[in-house]
Amino acid sequence: MSSSATQVFEIAVNLDDVSGEVLGAALESLLADGALDVWTSAIGMKKNRPGVMLSLLCKPEDRDRLTRRVMELTGSFGVRYRAWDRLVLERTEATTQTPYGPVRLKVGSLDGRVVTVKPEFEDMRTAAESHGVPLRKVLACVRQRSGE
Amino acid sequence: MSSSATQVFEIAVNLDDVSGEVLGAALESLLADGALDVWTSAIGMKKNRPGVMLSLLCKPEDRDRLTRRVMELTGSFGVRYRAWDRLVLERTEATTQTPYGPVRLKVGSLDGRVVTVKPEFEDMRTAAESHGVPLRKVLACVRQRSGE
Amino acid sequence: MSSSATQVFEIAVNLDDVSGEVLGAALESLLADGALDVWTSAIGMKKNRPGVMLSLLCKPEDRDRLTRRVMELTGSFGVRYRAWDRLVLERTEATTQTPYGPVRLKVGSLDGRVVTVKPEFEDMRTAAESHGVPLRKVLACVRQRSGE
Amino acid sequence: MSSSATQVFEIAVNLDDVSGEVLGAALESLLADGALDVWTSAIGMKKNRPGVMLSLLCKPEDRDRLTRRVMELTGSFGVRYRAWDRLVLERTEATTQTPYGPVRLKVGSLDGRVVTVKPEFEDMRTAAESHGVPLRKVLACVRQRSGE
Amino acid sequence: MSSSATQVFEIAVNLDDVSGEVLGAALESLLADGALDVWTSAIGMKKNRPGVMLSLLCKPEDRDRLTRRVMELTGSFGVRYRAWDRLVLERTEATTQTPYGPVRLKVGSLDGRVVTVKPEFEDMRTAAESHGVPLRKVLACVRQRSGE
Amino acid sequence: MSSSATQVFEIAVNLDDVSGEVLGAALESLLADGALDVWTSAIGMKKNRPGVMLSLLCKPEDRDRLTRRVMELTGSFGVRYRAWDRLVLERTEATTQTPYGPVRLKVGSLDGRVVTVKPEFEDMRTAAESHGVPLRKVLACVRQRSGE
Repeated sequence: MSSSATQVFEIAVNLDDVSGEVLGAALESLLADGALDVWTSAIGMKKNRPGVMLSLLCKPEDRDRLTRRVMELTGSFGVRYRAWDRLVLERTEATTQTPYGPVRLKVGSLDGRVVTVKPEFEDMRTAAESHGVPLRKVLACVRQRSGE
Repeated sequence: MSSSATQVFEIAVNLDDVSGEVLGAALESLLADGALDVWTSAIGMKKNRPGVMLSLLCKPEDRDRLTRRVMELTGSFGVRYRAWDRLVLERTEATTQTPYGPVRLKVGSLDGRVVTVKPEFEDMRTAAESHGVPLRKVLACVRQRSGE
Repeated sequence: MSSSATQVFEIAVNLDDVSGEVLGAALESLLADGALDVWTSAIGMKKNRPGVMLSLLCKPEDRDRLTRRVMELTGSFGVRYRAWDRLVLERTEATTQTPYGPVRLKVGSLDGRVVTVKPEFEDMRTAAESHGVPLRKVLACVRQRSGE
Repeated sequence: MSSSATQVFEIAVNLDDVSGEVLGAALESLLADGALDVWTSAIGMKKNRPGVMLSLLCKPEDRDRLTRRVMELTGSFGVRYRAWDRLVLERTEATTQTPYGPVRLKVGSLDGRVVTVKPEFEDMRTAAESHGVPLRKVLACVRQRSGE
Repeated sequence: MSSSATQVFEIAVNLDDVSGEVLGAALESLLADGALDVWTSAIGMKKNRPGVMLSLLCKPEDRDRLTRRVMELTGSFGVRYRAWDRLVLERTEATTQTPYGPVRLKVGSLDGRVVTVKPEFEDMRTAAESHGVPLRKVLACVRQRSGE
Repeated sequence: MSSSATQVFEIAVNLDDVSGEVLGAALESLLADGALDVWTSAIGMKKNRPGVMLSLLCKPEDRDRLTRRVMELTGSFGVRYRAWDRLVLERTEATTQTPYGPVRLKVGSLDGRVVTVKPEFEDMRTAAESHGVPLRKVLACVRQRSGE
């Protein structure tokens, strides 16, 4: 579809016997273990159980390792996985100055055209905390300068 | 507001250390213990935890007993409650015949005017199972006859 | 708490016998009937039912009328309501020019200090559609000019 | 699986930097751009973020165009897609008369047997609004006549 | 990936014209019909509709039968399905004694190492009800003995 | 209701113009600012918007300060609040030894009877990380020793 088309794997498991406390820690562990993204979705399961689907995206070479990791972290008897194709933007880096300090930007292009500009969240948070202003104020300043 | 205005209490608790398995059983126990309604809502809590808010409605005279019951069933350190006013319809009973057998109806009126007609779910389920048809088929028949 | 403190009523109902199609129309009707805000929340109910809580906020003088309206639109046998206090910002109007045309702004102040600036969504949508650009591009331009 | 088996593509993206206001407009744009269905799901993401998964179904020939469109509308750096097989009913049209006017019906059959009858929502809404009755009343009338 | 790798099919449908009451019954029917797992997810659909995605996992040989079953139970015009690979633990059975009676355990192993021990929910529920204690108390006793 | 009955305030706001990224940071800020609990709920709003309700519980003396803080962090034009009564358990502290190190316990009693025992999450996380075992393993050990 494009030179920037890639393949990723989704690993998913439905859980009704793990608490939110354990799931929050599992989400952080899986990101530290190399998952590209990890998220939870609320689902309704049998016997009136409010369950959670834990999902992640990873590179093909991490699939088997992370499938086992999900089993260890959740104690599930079955974990499923399958491939997705993915279109990703080419990335370049930039930096913008704000009254609260510099903020790095990720610039995303498709077929040579800039589609999006995303400020680094941690730079904005650091700026907001060091100046005691709400994060959304820093975000507004970045947008004034970056056009996003 | 109307002779059919009443007061109910809502009891609620936010949980991040109880599994869906335990919550499903708690929901059933609380209904058996006299709650008017019990439900769960998915909430996002601190530390990336997918939590659950367990809520119920009850009569004022059941409030203290059920608040304690929620604590026992969930192990929570704090359970909150507050009053709601409620407008309820006057109810009458009726029955409709369907090819799958009789189904009772609850007829709801406000200020003497019929506002809604609700078939008894368990009658419909029994009819559906005994005739091997989907529940929605029985529901359609009931609606043909009841005008709802 | 402040000269801008007001009281609003919340009206709520739990539903397991109404479809999303009917609920979407009910949400629109209630806004047209004068509700300040209307929203739905997914809830888990008895017998494995994925239910919906329909909620709205309204002025005290609209409470009785809208409670009845919720009953008519949903066919529910019981609708609950209760008061909330609310802190609201003082509002002033402004307009900003963008390459896509003018966009009105709502400026919100608390104790004489500007807290937020919100562009009119419909102005942004009109601008986006008339120029064939994504809404988020118009939003970015507005933020460049308004500092939000 | 059947002569009515077809293939559709799902396009999905996880978002934590786009507001509901922008997502609601994106959903409408994607339907106007030819998506078969578009929906949002609430997800819990890293750093306590309440995120949204935006998903759509489309015909294979629209996949590349709509993948790019999702990128433009959301500003996401990565959008994923994959194929599903789908079983679809054969459709025929019908019309039923109600006290509120005519309502068109979609009749769905599988292997020559009628499985479902679905009234046109917009016909029901028009009828409800022109007669000042709740949509569910019109729906009830249609069901009385269509057997659904 | 392992001798315990298997393939399952996911069958899914988006619904905006079926109530929670009917969906709860459909979930139970599909489990009785041989689905490995069935769940619902809340989704936001066009026209402000709070919809539901009904999903299930099944063995490849049950795919066609259950796809038709989903159509009959929900009346949907289109039901989609696709394959997932799945890693499943080897299972062995055990039993633990508690003050509330015996509780069976499922022991899950991967590559010969025990990964998880799961008590039978119904055994715990029976024990809890017969002794009038909260389910979580029985669960705690089981964990004391099983190390999970 | 009991000597351990207290009053808390809930502060809530419905948001459709703030991203998950900003909301995740707001949740953390509000906890740092003294809220007793903060959580998000997914809601469906007008114009097909997937919105978020941000809610918190606080002590009566923090109500006005935190209401203003929610406005600053979210830019909302209106924030609502109301009182709840709450039943809280008496707390005592304990410590249990595990193969992974000591873990503090909060013991909760009602009318002099122990109702629940909750291990300190951060102690368990530290133990799990320092020994490279899943959190749920540490949790299982704690339960073996604490009877919860």
